[in-house]
Amino acid sequence: MGTISKPVVGIIGTGAIGGFYGLMLARAGFDVHFLLRSEFSAVAERGLHVNSAVHGPLTLNPVQAYASAEDMPPCDWLLVGAKTTSNVGLAPSIIQASKPGAKVLLLQNGLDVEDSLRERLPDSLHLLGGLCLICVHREGPGQIAHQALGAVNVGYHSGPAIDDAERMAIVEEGCTLFRAAGIDSQAMPNLQQARWQKLVWNIPYNGLSVLLGASTTPLMADADSRALIQALMTEVVHGAKACGHDMPPGYAEYLFMMTEKMPDYWPSMHHDFLHKRALELEAIYVRPLSAAKAAGCELPRIEALYRTLGFIDRRNV
Amino acid sequence: MGTISKPVVGIIGTGAIGGFYGLMLARAGFDVHFLLRSEFSAVAERGLHVNSAVHGPLTLNPVQAYASAEDMPPCDWLLVGAKTTSNVGLAPSIIQASKPGAKVLLLQNGLDVEDSLRERLPDSLHLLGGLCLICVHREGPGQIAHQALGAVNVGYHSGPAIDDAERMAIVEEGCTLFRAAGIDSQAMPNLQQARWQKLVWNIPYNGLSVLLGASTTPLMADADSRALIQALMTEVVHGAKACGHDMPPGYAEYLFMMTEKMPDYWPSMHHDFLHKRALELEAIYVRPLSAAKAAGCELPRIEALYRTLGFIDRRNV
Repeated sequence: MGTISKPVVGIIGTGAIGGFYGLMLARAGFDVHFLLRSEFSAVAERGLHVNSAVHGPLTLNPVQAYASAEDMPPCDWLLVGAKTTSNVGLAPSIIQASKPGAKVLLLQNGLDVEDSLRERLPDSLHLLGGLCLICVHREGPGQIAHQALGAVNVGYHSGPAIDDAERMAIVEEGCTLFRAAGIDSQAMPNLQQARWQKLVWNIPYNGLSVLLGASTTPLMADADSRALIQALMTEVVHGAKACGHDMPPGYAEYLFMMTEKMPDYWPSMHHDFLHKRALELEAIYVRPLSAAKAAGCELPRIEALYRTLGFIDRRNV
Repeated sequence: MGTISKPVVGIIGTGAIGGFYGLMLARAGFDVHFLLRSEFSAVAERGLHVNSAVHGPLTLNPVQAYASAEDMPPCDWLLVGAKTTSNVGLAPSIIQASKPGAKVLLLQNGLDVEDSLRERLPDSLHLLGGLCLICVHREGPGQIAHQALGAVNVGYHSGPAIDDAERMAIVEEGCTLFRAAGIDSQAMPNLQQARWQKLVWNIPYNGLSVLLGASTTPLMADADSRALIQALMTEVVHGAKACGHDMPPGYAEYLFMMTEKMPDYWPSMHHDFLHKRALELEAIYVRPLSAAKAAGCELPRIEALYRTLGFIDRRNV
C-alpha cells in the first residue's frame, strides 16, 4: 500500500468540544481548519488554549481560523461540535467546506441528531455520529477547560458507503484519526445503540444539573438525587431495550461509578442554561421518549423530568 | 334541649391558617385564645389583621394572646395550624390547654399527620383532622393575606367516641363552629379519603412551586407544567384507589379547573422554602408513596418529584 496523505480536517462550531478535538488533532500534525463565529477575532489574534487537567496547558497559535466557510479549503473530515439545536443552519457551511465524498462527523449527544442535517446534505457525503466521553467546557473566547476523560466513539449514520465493510472502514478511519492524536476511540457497529448508551448518562445528569442547579459531586453525595439518578438510568436502559438496543450488562452501574470518580463536573446543559441558550431537549429527551413510546414503553420519570425542563427552558431563553 | 354555651376555642400555632380561622371565629363571637411564639409581642400589642380579598380588611384587637399554654384557659376545641413537622413538639401545649374530653383539630395537609401526635395525647382527647381549601399566607407579624376560598372539611381520627354516631356528632359540632363564622364546612365520613383528596392538589402544586420557583398562574399557563400536573394528579388518584379510597369521578379535573380560576397563588411549601423552614415532605410525599407502595402501587412521577424536593430541602434548611 502506498502512503496515504494526512486528511484535511475542518472544525465546524469551535466551542469546547470542537476546539478541544481540533487542537489535539492539529498538535498531532493534522492540517486543521477552524470555522468560528463570535470568537473569530479572539482566536485569530491569540490562538486556542486548552487548560487540561490531563495533558497540562496546551496552546495552538497561530490557528487556521475562518469567519466564513467560503474561505476554508475543501476538507476530508468535518467535525461538528455545535449544539444540536443549530444543525439545520450549519448545512450550507458543511457543504461549502467539504471535498466530494467527505466524512461529516457530528460530535453531539442525543437521538437522531443526524436526521435533520442528512436531509440537507448531498448524497455524496458520508454522515457519522460521535459520542464524546469527556468533561470539557468553554471558559472564554478561545479558552477551554478540560477536566477529565476524552474518548470519542464513532458510528456510521448514512451516505454513499455501499456495504458494511465500507462503512466500517470509514468508521475505523475516523477512529484512527483520533487515536493518532492520543485520544481513545472505538468503532461502534450500531450508532443508535451507541447514542442510547450515551443517553444513560446524559438524561439524568444534564437534566438534574439544570433542575437542581447542581454539579455531579453534590448530585452524587445526596441519597435522594442518587436514587433518582439510578431510577432515571434504569428507565433509559428499559427504553433502549424496547427500541431493540440491549445495553451491556451493568452498563448503568458502570457510568454511575465512573461519575463518582470524576472530578466535580457541570454538564453542558447547565452551561446552556446559564448562558440562556436553548436546551437540547429535543435530542436528549423528546426523541428518546417518543421512540420508547412508539415501542410501547412508558418512561414516566424521564417524562416528568422533561416536563420540568420544558417549563424552565421556556422561561429562560 | 337546653341552651348550649359557646365553646372555648384555643389556636395552637397562629400562622396564616390558625390566625385566619381564629380571627373569623372570634369575630363571630366565640371565645378564642391564641398561643403564639415569635409573634406574641406584635399580636399582643397591635392585634391580628387579615387582608382578605373575600371579606375585606379584618381586624381583631385586642387579641387574647398567650406566650405560654400554661396561661391559657381550658379549651373545648383546639385548632392546630402549625406545620406538620412540629406536631410532636406541640403535644405538651395541647394537653395543657385542653379541657377533659376536648376536641383537637389538626388543620394540616398530608397523610397520617395525626399519628405522631396521637401517641402523645391522653386517650380522653378527641383527635380530628381538617382539610382547608384556602389561599392564605402570612405577610408579617400578625399580618395575614387571604386571597381566595376558605372551606374546612372535617373528619374524626381517634379518641373516646364510642361509635360512629358519636364520632359524626363531634365532627358536625366542628363543622357548625366554622359555619357559624361564615366558613363552608363539610363533615368527611372518612378522614383518610379526605386526606387523599386534598393530596390530589397538594402533591403537584406544592412540590412544583418549590422545584420550578413558580406560582399557580405560570404553572397553569405552560403546556409542559400543565401536562405534568395532570400526570401527577392521575398518579395520586391511582395511589388513593390502591389504598381503598376511590376519588369522586372527575375530582382531579375539578381541582385542575378550580386552580385555573383561582387568583395567582404561591402554595405554602414555597413559603416554607423561602423562609428556609423544613418542607413537609414526610406528610405530603413520603407517607402517600409508602402507603401506595405497600398496596402494590408505584407512583414514579411523584417519587421523582419527591427525590428532587428531598435534595432541595437538604440544601436549604
